[in-house]
Amino acid sequence: MSIKIGIIGYGNLGRGVEIAVKEAPDMELAAVFTRRDPATVKILTEGVPVCNVSEAEKWAGKIDVCIICGGSATDLPVQTPQFAGLFNVIDSFDTHARIPEHFANVDAAAKKASTVGIISVGWDPGMFSLNRVYANAILPDGKDYTFWGKGVSQGHSDAIRRIKGVKNAKQYTIPVESALEAVRAGENPELTTRQKHTRECFVVLEEGADAARVEKEIKEMPNYFSDYDTTVHFISEEELLRDHSGMAHGGFVFRTGKTGVNKEHSHVIEYSLKLDSNPEFTTSVLVAYARAAKRLHDEGQCGCKTVLDIAPAYLSEKSGEELRAHLL
Amino acid sequence: MSIKIGIIGYGNLGRGVEIAVKEAPDMELAAVFTRRDPATVKILTEGVPVCNVSEAEKWAGKIDVCIICGGSATDLPVQTPQFAGLFNVIDSFDTHARIPEHFANVDAAAKKASTVGIISVGWDPGMFSLNRVYANAILPDGKDYTFWGKGVSQGHSDAIRRIKGVKNAKQYTIPVESALEAVRAGENPELTTRQKHTRECFVVLEEGADAARVEKEIKEMPNYFSDYDTTVHFISEEELLRDHSGMAHGGFVFRTGKTGVNKEHSHVIEYSLKLDSNPEFTTSVLVAYARAAKRLHDEGQCGCKTVLDIAPAYLSEKSGEELRAHLL
Repeated sequence: MSIKIGIIGYGNLGRGVEIAVKEAPDMELAAVFTRRDPATVKILTEGVPVCNVSEAEKWAGKIDVCIICGGSATDLPVQTPQFAGLFNVIDSFDTHARIPEHFANVDAAAKKASTVGIISVGWDPGMFSLNRVYANAILPDGKDYTFWGKGVSQGHSDAIRRIKGVKNAKQYTIPVESALEAVRAGENPELTTRQKHTRECFVVLEEGADAARVEKEIKEMPNYFSDYDTTVHFISEEELLRDHSGMAHGGFVFRTGKTGVNKEHSHVIEYSLKLDSNPEFTTSVLVAYARAAKRLHDEGQCGCKTVLDIAPAYLSEKSGEELRAHLL
Repeated sequence: MSIKIGIIGYGNLGRGVEIAVKEAPDMELAAVFTRRDPATVKILTEGVPVCNVSEAEKWAGKIDVCIICGGSATDLPVQTPQFAGLFNVIDSFDTHARIPEHFANVDAAAKKASTVGIISVGWDPGMFSLNRVYANAILPDGKDYTFWGKGVSQGHSDAIRRIKGVKNAKQYTIPVESALEAVRAGENPELTTRQKHTRECFVVLEEGADAARVEKEIKEMPNYFSDYDTTVHFISEEELLRDHSGMAHGGFVFRTGKTGVNKEHSHVIEYSLKLDSNPEFTTSVLVAYARAAKRLHDEGQCGCKTVLDIAPAYLSEKSGEELRAHLL
């Protein structure tokens, strides 16, 4: 029997989930929930109802797993515990510092309702996290490095758009090639923030805005830009839309470590992603973990989990026998 | 309380386990078992007994996990089920085609004795396998590529040494750089065996042996060499020992796949290892999974498992709270 998936929130992520569910041989989309007027939301899958989130309660028992596609700032801290009271849920909560608090809230709600909630699913947190954990366990005497990009940082783009005189902007985070190479060569470099990433900004000014002042404000912005080598390009809105609407992203996780009686042997573990569409890759990960949520719940488990708590085999639609015969 | 580790078989792998256990803050070496006369076996850790394997039974209940460090051809198929009757066990069984049979044998023995047996732990099978499973689950519409090297293949070196007139030999498996680049660029190439790897052989001849005949026999050997571009170098035994005694190895696992309504987005997942010491890295993985075996057993689980059945958090000595706060 197919795993019945619900989508809560229909933006880039919600649409990505819809596409990934189509691709999964063992899943079907049951319903899409939105805060908007359902009549205004057009989805890609024919015959699937679009409902207002207020109706979600009526769907309890009819959906195996709801994938919550809201934002980490304000949506998920409320929605994930709330819907864990009705369904098994998955989210992509990515505010690293607030994960322990979010975990506790979802855990309490899910245990009360005997559901499974899997939080912080995606690539970072997500696939990058589990690679850090595997590599740390294997090479206890070592160093971790994470690089992001090249890709658009939503947070940094938003920060530029808040500057007076800026009409629109996109910011790319770019790993420094020489730093990547030094890590890959096992040199264990000590890298400052500035040595790891550069930042490249494409900015559309409002009419009459002072370019020099905007550039200075960007480059001196604490936390976001002042610790980085930042390049600012002023372009037209037409150019921005034409050349900078892509959602490509990616990154690298390394662990370098030593073994041997005299620590004479070096090892480099590298995991990297090169993604044409950040939201579609994230939702592909969410959908794989939806399969795991259903199975864990069928086994009688409940409460909050992360990618660190779930065995790889739970993500695959293949049986243990098939996996051992073909992928082990 | 420390996890008490036993080592069964004291060669390159056994010594690697001993070194990795020293590095683990939560483990101690309890005993080493050998088929040789224990008096002839000198180990690195002071105060730890070396026993004959025939005495293993007396240690039941005094060791948490035994790591079985024999070979896949003849040792492990016998030893892993045998010792699973006494201890939780880990092995690095790497004959891919015989994994289902080995799994069944270990599963039966471990279930009977209420122990946990984790088989085929290392990097391939092992870390490469779980990367294949994660990546397949995330990108169902895609292609897998595994490259090995540069590193010595024991099987191919042995095959050369069996040729008449060969005194000693080492064979390196080398991934073809242009093939790696094409995969990394998301080109989804169809690659023949010859296009993926080359083979480089360093051969010491016995006195009076016919170099041309040996080279021809190597290059035409079916399965091992005939499908590859193979280079043969004849060198002295002194050169072989001086320049080719290293145990470096490594490799690459890729999955490239597409997402999007019209499959318009490409993604590349890459995992790679660059290892100075193949046996020491393998044993570092074995030791991390020994931690998992102890925990699974403490939870009341039993039977045979592989790396695909075990959640990443079980490998770490850190608590769930610590992992969520620092590595997620």
